[in-house]
Amino acid sequence: MYVAIAGASGYTGAELLRILSRYKDIEINQITSRQYTGKTLKDVFPVFTKSKYENLTFKENLDLSISDIYFLCLPHEASLELVKQLYDNGKIIIDLSAAYRIKKSEVYKEYYGFEHNYPHLLEEAVYGLPEIYRDKIKTAKIVANPGCYPTATLLGLYPLIKNNLLNQNNSVIVNALSGISGAGRHLKEDFMYPESYSNVYAYNITKHRHTPEMEDVIENVSKKKISIRFTPHIIPISRGMLSTINVFIEISKKDLKELYYDTYKNEYFIRLQDRPSRVKEVIGTNFCDIYVDYDEKNKIAVITSAIDNLSKGASSQAVQNLNIILNKPENYCLENLPLFP
Amino acid sequence: MYVAIAGASGYTGAELLRILSRYKDIEINQITSRQYTGKTLKDVFPVFTKSKYENLTFKENLDLSISDIYFLCLPHEASLELVKQLYDNGKIIIDLSAAYRIKKSEVYKEYYGFEHNYPHLLEEAVYGLPEIYRDKIKTAKIVANPGCYPTATLLGLYPLIKNNLLNQNNSVIVNALSGISGAGRHLKEDFMYPESYSNVYAYNITKHRHTPEMEDVIENVSKKKISIRFTPHIIPISRGMLSTINVFIEISKKDLKELYYDTYKNEYFIRLQDRPSRVKEVIGTNFCDIYVDYDEKNKIAVITSAIDNLSKGASSQAVQNLNIILNKPENYCLENLPLFP
Amino acid sequence: MYVAIAGASGYTGAELLRILSRYKDIEINQITSRQYTGKTLKDVFPVFTKSKYENLTFKENLDLSISDIYFLCLPHEASLELVKQLYDNGKIIIDLSAAYRIKKSEVYKEYYGFEHNYPHLLEEAVYGLPEIYRDKIKTAKIVANPGCYPTATLLGLYPLIKNNLLNQNNSVIVNALSGISGAGRHLKEDFMYPESYSNVYAYNITKHRHTPEMEDVIENVSKKKISIRFTPHIIPISRGMLSTINVFIEISKKDLKELYYDTYKNEYFIRLQDRPSRVKEVIGTNFCDIYVDYDEKNKIAVITSAIDNLSKGASSQAVQNLNIILNKPENYCLENLPLFP
Amino acid sequence: MYVAIAGASGYTGAELLRILSRYKDIEINQITSRQYTGKTLKDVFPVFTKSKYENLTFKENLDLSISDIYFLCLPHEASLELVKQLYDNGKIIIDLSAAYRIKKSEVYKEYYGFEHNYPHLLEEAVYGLPEIYRDKIKTAKIVANPGCYPTATLLGLYPLIKNNLLNQNNSVIVNALSGISGAGRHLKEDFMYPESYSNVYAYNITKHRHTPEMEDVIENVSKKKISIRFTPHIIPISRGMLSTINVFIEISKKDLKELYYDTYKNEYFIRLQDRPSRVKEVIGTNFCDIYVDYDEKNKIAVITSAIDNLSKGASSQAVQNLNIILNKPENYCLENLPLFP
Repeated sequence: MYVAIAGASGYTGAELLRILSRYKDIEINQITSRQYTGKTLKDVFPVFTKSKYENLTFKENLDLSISDIYFLCLPHEASLELVKQLYDNGKIIIDLSAAYRIKKSEVYKEYYGFEHNYPHLLEEAVYGLPEIYRDKIKTAKIVANPGCYPTATLLGLYPLIKNNLLNQNNSVIVNALSGISGAGRHLKEDFMYPESYSNVYAYNITKHRHTPEMEDVIENVSKKKISIRFTPHIIPISRGMLSTINVFIEISKKDLKELYYDTYKNEYFIRLQDRPSRVKEVIGTNFCDIYVDYDEKNKIAVITSAIDNLSKGASSQAVQNLNIILNKPENYCLENLPLFP
Repeated sequence: MYVAIAGASGYTGAELLRILSRYKDIEINQITSRQYTGKTLKDVFPVFTKSKYENLTFKENLDLSISDIYFLCLPHEASLELVKQLYDNGKIIIDLSAAYRIKKSEVYKEYYGFEHNYPHLLEEAVYGLPEIYRDKIKTAKIVANPGCYPTATLLGLYPLIKNNLLNQNNSVIVNALSGISGAGRHLKEDFMYPESYSNVYAYNITKHRHTPEMEDVIENVSKKKISIRFTPHIIPISRGMLSTINVFIEISKKDLKELYYDTYKNEYFIRLQDRPSRVKEVIGTNFCDIYVDYDEKNKIAVITSAIDNLSKGASSQAVQNLNIILNKPENYCLENLPLFP
Repeated sequence: MYVAIAGASGYTGAELLRILSRYKDIEINQITSRQYTGKTLKDVFPVFTKSKYENLTFKENLDLSISDIYFLCLPHEASLELVKQLYDNGKIIIDLSAAYRIKKSEVYKEYYGFEHNYPHLLEEAVYGLPEIYRDKIKTAKIVANPGCYPTATLLGLYPLIKNNLLNQNNSVIVNALSGISGAGRHLKEDFMYPESYSNVYAYNITKHRHTPEMEDVIENVSKKKISIRFTPHIIPISRGMLSTINVFIEISKKDLKELYYDTYKNEYFIRLQDRPSRVKEVIGTNFCDIYVDYDEKNKIAVITSAIDNLSKGASSQAVQNLNIILNKPENYCLENLPLFP
Repeated sequence: MYVAIAGASGYTGAELLRILSRYKDIEINQITSRQYTGKTLKDVFPVFTKSKYENLTFKENLDLSISDIYFLCLPHEASLELVKQLYDNGKIIIDLSAAYRIKKSEVYKEYYGFEHNYPHLLEEAVYGLPEIYRDKIKTAKIVANPGCYPTATLLGLYPLIKNNLLNQNNSVIVNALSGISGAGRHLKEDFMYPESYSNVYAYNITKHRHTPEMEDVIENVSKKKISIRFTPHIIPISRGMLSTINVFIEISKKDLKELYYDTYKNEYFIRLQDRPSRVKEVIGTNFCDIYVDYDEKNKIAVITSAIDNLSKGASSQAVQNLNIILNKPENYCLENLPLFP
């Protein structure tokens, strides 16, 4: 099995390379980067010294034929076209951009600023959240790997969605916190170390691209339109994400906890914790740690869901999808525990 | 004017000393600390070297007669009794504990675990949030200095409260983030540097002491019982706090912004910002930076309010109260800007 | 093979458990902790949820007979006696304390404050730095696992020591920086998150226990007494260590670099880098990244050596020693790359 | 008195503005920034909201005639010419670049890559380290404000330099640690928050521009050529700097401490501490905290010197120089204590 990683010099690309360096039975035979064309992986990232692919050289352009599986870590618009071409070439694509995540093509115009010309491929693409779409992923040709906020939030909500417990009148209010690596490897004063140090703030309060992504999945699963009030925040850590979800719902705390237990009892990567989930305990792993509580006074379920935005929120989830496609154990190469402390 | 600081070796005590070191016309004539009795300020905190009070010695017990104004940075139960005694001695007290913040004495039993035996003094005490209670503070004998979460959240909500725009059916959902100094100087594994590093989590989700404090103030101002859904979180910074507030309300964005502008146009310490408030921009100051936005789709106002939990959330607010009592300009000794970067 | 970990609730114990959770062919059959007796691993560290030993229960006392290999993560004096007893029982011991690291027993009185009553066992013990003592480790009964500062510094100096290029007149000046986890899981105000935040300082400037440990190894290898000027510092990261070493020596830069290349060309865990070693690039791994440069003007070789203080500086090095003893590949279970970013 | 700040949108410019916002008797009448021409201070840095100069507008070009005192926070080559022109216009210049710091003009070619065409002005310029050159600063027309590493290191060495205790055979070995703001506000992947997080490393090991600056001052004061072995490091904090200095010298610890005490007993900004200086205790201030110790075994004095690289290492030192020039108390506007914690 030959594997390509396009856009391998960004954070999600590097994270994929980190994980796949120990993956048996595949061979990464091309990595691309416009910025670092001609340099080896080790030159660009000395951290890869002594690893399997240290001497692999970044190419400028992706060869669409020489690999079997293509991971795309590219801007949305670049993925849009490339997925089409790779699909036509009969390749398996795991796309880490948002280009194929949302079934409603009109959303792209409003939220991403481009026309989506391949609505039939949107139908073909499978949203790569295995805990919801595992069966479809097995035979998918295009896996639209989920965004980080949607991963944390949808997994936090899924037992309610699946059991049809969200209804149009239920308001879902999400406050989410992301480490700065979520912004990608783009140079910006705001993300310079001194300016991010000790800094915390909300952003994109009334319009964030991940809102329609979450609403789309909920509608697809439950056949209901649910509107999410979503406030993302930047916090000064490198990796890690916490989604704190408030859901108006009448239920007993006991039933609520059982619902979560039942939904997730066979899911290796979902860890239901007895105290609010802690971001540190998932960093560098594919775990999603969930805690659920119930505020009797306000009739609100409060759920916290923690992931590593670059791992379960991007690259290790992509590997989980790869495992499903290759019929490997789902935690193959993904068993490591986070560092403590 | 002689000033005492009881419990001066904790974080709020040290922060008071930092600010009052440059305050003219007063003299701190006693500081207490059980742990450091007999040591000088400089011995305990070398950071005070070359400052006015570097050689002041920590005493074990507070002398109730030799000072005019008493700042209490003590556990709630210790304050409970001491305030009573100092009040009987005719002293002015600025109490940084919660012992006199809530008018309903029965709350203390449920949330703090002790019986409040001085309900008449609860009536006498003035809640020390100057932007709401300035006039009463001028002549107060007991100032109950607000908690950090209530300061950030109430200031974020006040234009709505004051204009009677919260009603019982409006749900108010608050997600707040606190730097770790908010936990005080208590030794605990969770707050050791390595374990807090990269860690983020919610805590006390269904019961936090600051919830009744906020609800009590809202009721006192608006004569309405409003229930607040409040989720506090720990984030890995030393100082700083952000309260992100969701309020169900039908209003235009323009009217909402004007309401905030009108309410705060003469308030020096409230800075209405054009982009979501950033914690870094208030650290070490008495500013409260507020941003207000409106989510048309969900009919929810989203307000972010940032303070320094140890400053506007505790000690500099106590100095602001002192300024009011002493009839000084309210920003006396509180004009400094935060560090950037 | 049954394995015991004594003192498993500290940082080095937890790090061992993290690594050994994925180690095949052994079974951890006892973990001890005075503080957490009776609790399961998952109760104490929820981070171990879904891992192999999550339900293992902490015992108060170590059973000296039921395991084959004993990792001791205990205070020095506790190890002193326990190693003796386990040795008499014919067990293999990997001791992470300093109790058996130094051949000269009199050092213990001066630097550790206790009399070392088992000088014959000091002879028996092998200093567990595989890059120097690999052959002896293979058959060792007592492995004295090195301290973190000595690991980083000795590996940085070893090519010079081995080739007899340090002489008594050469001064060796070491400035080392350690993440705060190096102080262990001991509650202290200095190591609380708010007080360590943004803080950096030297400590134990004229007397640090790791100085005689380094000098002892150098003397054992080179038969020369070399005095090291060593200044350790605390820096505000959780894990990671950098040792910057200045050696007065006359040599060409080319020869110097070749010397390092030759010495380490077959060492998997030593990565000679082309730019000064970066702590981030070794965190969570057993790598030691070394950079060497030469200051012609001052005739000083400058070497930087980076490790993770809890991994190569403690627990993963202990596993490397285990691999050697069990005749496994030396990087078994130790192949993972650090997170980037 | 009218004051100009050229290059006011970088870190040192912003720090000057922060301090001078509370400075009486002067009026900042122009600030320049190529990047932000036409925007107000508050637009660019919302942190300045409610401060004196919030509505001051950045200009593209500096007017050489309308101000009395010019602070230059510009690239070295830009300062080179501008200082000349301002000097010819009879203005007072406080230059925060390196363009006029070093008396030997030939150094500029080697270390800065440009020819210094105004050697006579190098003679005219006064190195703005008040603890050494106070008298000359009083009447200086050109103050060459020192670099951050030289400030920390020279103040740590000055008692030895002044008393002629360094000699050519004494080796001076300096290891210094700088917060990332020292790199300025230049966009670079290395200084992005995620990549700097947990990262520590040395850089420019064999050639750093601050080495000849330090050597030049030592030669000017002591008339001796001393070669300094200098290794700078980046540590993951925003602000703060620690210089750890090893000096080969035979002296008693008592004499050494007295020497420092005597030299600095009247210096307000030098705080001799009883334990190794801590960076956190000087952040945001003009203090330089110094600790001195003596290693009897190696005959090495070890001195630690901590400053805030942007304050005493740049902008607050520039204000200290302004105070001297304006005949104000030297700590005017510079009395604030650092935050604790």
